Amino acid sequence: MKIVALAGGVGGSRLADGLARILPAGDLTVIVNTGDDFEHLGLHISPDLDTVCYTLAGIENLDKGWGRRDDTFNFLANLQRIGGPHWFSLGDRDLATHIERTRLLSEGKFLHQITKDFCIAWGIKQIVLPMSNDPVRTMVITDIDGMLPFQEYFVHRNCRPKVKGFRFDGGEIACPAPGVLEALAHSDAVVICPSNPWVSIDPILFMSGLKSSLAQKMVIAVSPIIAGNTIKGPAAKMYFELGIQPSALAVAHHYKNIISGFILDSLDKSLSPQIAVPVMATDIVMNSQEKRLRLAQDVLNFIQTL
Amino acid sequence: MKIVALAGGVGGSRLADGLARILPAGDLTVIVNTGDDFEHLGLHISPDLDTVCYTLAGIENLDKGWGRRDDTFNFLANLQRIGGPHWFSLGDRDLATHIERTRLLSEGKFLHQITKDFCIAWGIKQIVLPMSNDPVRTMVITDIDGMLPFQEYFVHRNCRPKVKGFRFDGGEIACPAPGVLEALAHSDAVVICPSNPWVSIDPILFMSGLKSSLAQKMVIAVSPIIAGNTIKGPAAKMYFELGIQPSALAVAHHYKNIISGFILDSLDKSLSPQIAVPVMATDIVMNSQEKRLRLAQDVLNFIQTL
Repeated sequence: MKIVALAGGVGGSRLADGLARILPAGDLTVIVNTGDDFEHLGLHISPDLDTVCYTLAGIENLDKGWGRRDDTFNFLANLQRIGGPHWFSLGDRDLATHIERTRLLSEGKFLHQITKDFCIAWGIKQIVLPMSNDPVRTMVITDIDGMLPFQEYFVHRNCRPKVKGFRFDGGEIACPAPGVLEALAHSDAVVICPSNPWVSIDPILFMSGLKSSLAQKMVIAVSPIIAGNTIKGPAAKMYFELGIQPSALAVAHHYKNIISGFILDSLDKSLSPQIAVPVMATDIVMNSQEKRLRLAQDVLNFIQTL
Repeated sequence: MKIVALAGGVGGSRLADGLARILPAGDLTVIVNTGDDFEHLGLHISPDLDTVCYTLAGIENLDKGWGRRDDTFNFLANLQRIGGPHWFSLGDRDLATHIERTRLLSEGKFLHQITKDFCIAWGIKQIVLPMSNDPVRTMVITDIDGMLPFQEYFVHRNCRPKVKGFRFDGGEIACPAPGVLEALAHSDAVVICPSNPWVSIDPILFMSGLKSSLAQKMVIAVSPIIAGNTIKGPAAKMYFELGIQPSALAVAHHYKNIISGFILDSLDKSLSPQIAVPVMATDIVMNSQEKRLRLAQDVLNFIQTL
């Protein structure tokens, strides 16, 4: 069964990792959001792509949800001492990824090729694709701070400004990266991982050709919201500020035109009757390797029942 | 007594540090070679400037002669793992210097301003000036590998190729950095530190206006060669390959048109009569803080006798 997973950061990478531990390597393709990529210190940083790769390679930082395991922060300490912009934490090991990616991009290599080469170096056997080689930049429209680039909103301002909406600059002309539409076309099912629908999954779906290529597919989504809140990240806060009660129901509604099945947490089981597609209720918190694996198995079992 | 020191890497930075511990902060200006600056991994790296600043700040790596004390190499380890060019060792703390310098240069700041700001951050009270804000690139003409950029010769090929000569690309049109000619004009004496004459001092002297501004000055040089060899670096090897017997005498000859005094090691005292200017013989090995200080004091005493 060939699976394509659409993923953002932590939640997406953990479900992708669970799937990777069950499926034959060639049967899983992970398409990763690049809408929150940004330029910082002259470097091209792809936070979601790195989180997915580090997680699949087993070298991710489990506590922080970003960066490398056992990393040091000596670069950042000196950067701060000499007055550089140190609001975005970059570990020493992690930094090599950004510097080498930037160097290769400046040589004319494409992001999907660089990602492939990094995956080989890190021993990742699954296919990881950036959603696009073209720049797509998620902008957060806020109440008093105006339009903010995503990392400015997310990291620098710690999600404090109230959200009024989103814009995916470049998204309307960005081409899906080579392999993205092909992987979708050849897939048996598409899994929308429990990532932020607004800023991790929507930028992927926004690209030309994406939604239409999902039209004939079995698509199931896993809720990133449990009992009205998120494990991590601002998804629930965003729903609330946009005037929508944050819930698994709101997520199912978010994806209503594309999904053929929906997975929510057992705590939200009572919402199932209000969702128009088949629903599976299970434990969707992935706070251990074992639970990643179990949710992935539930996802695959659910797909087979549809 | 206002002193200007011309310096390259290790030897230059150590004598500059000795002088800094004796002279009032405002009385010492260090003019540093930038001929071996280079672009690597998209970063502007100024090896001599950093060695001088780290040494004056007391944060230099004493064993290696480059980079920061107590640095880690986690960046380099991941860079190597993902197949990046890792032949030039960059510590994690050190890296912040290059990244922030590159960022500031890309914003339009000048190298001398950036250096000044870094010096303030590192608590350096003396004036440290790059010889120029303009690119000067020392090229090493070799027997079988042709023309090599300095770091390619020095680090990547470990000084193995035989040297046939040097070229200072950009040197003929480079302007001395703001403050360089002024510091020379207001100085009571100029000290040519025990740095490599060919690749550390000559690039400074090659710039337009430099030699003429030394014409009326008391200039003393300290030999980087002791008993026919160097403590560190390829200066002796270079003299030999260029057909010149490496010795303190050869160094004195190198500077013959500009110096008014010369300091050599006590081991080379017998060469003194062959040198046309006044000579002081003393212990010029600076393998401790105390010895840096003592040589600096000898230099200042010698100047006062001239």
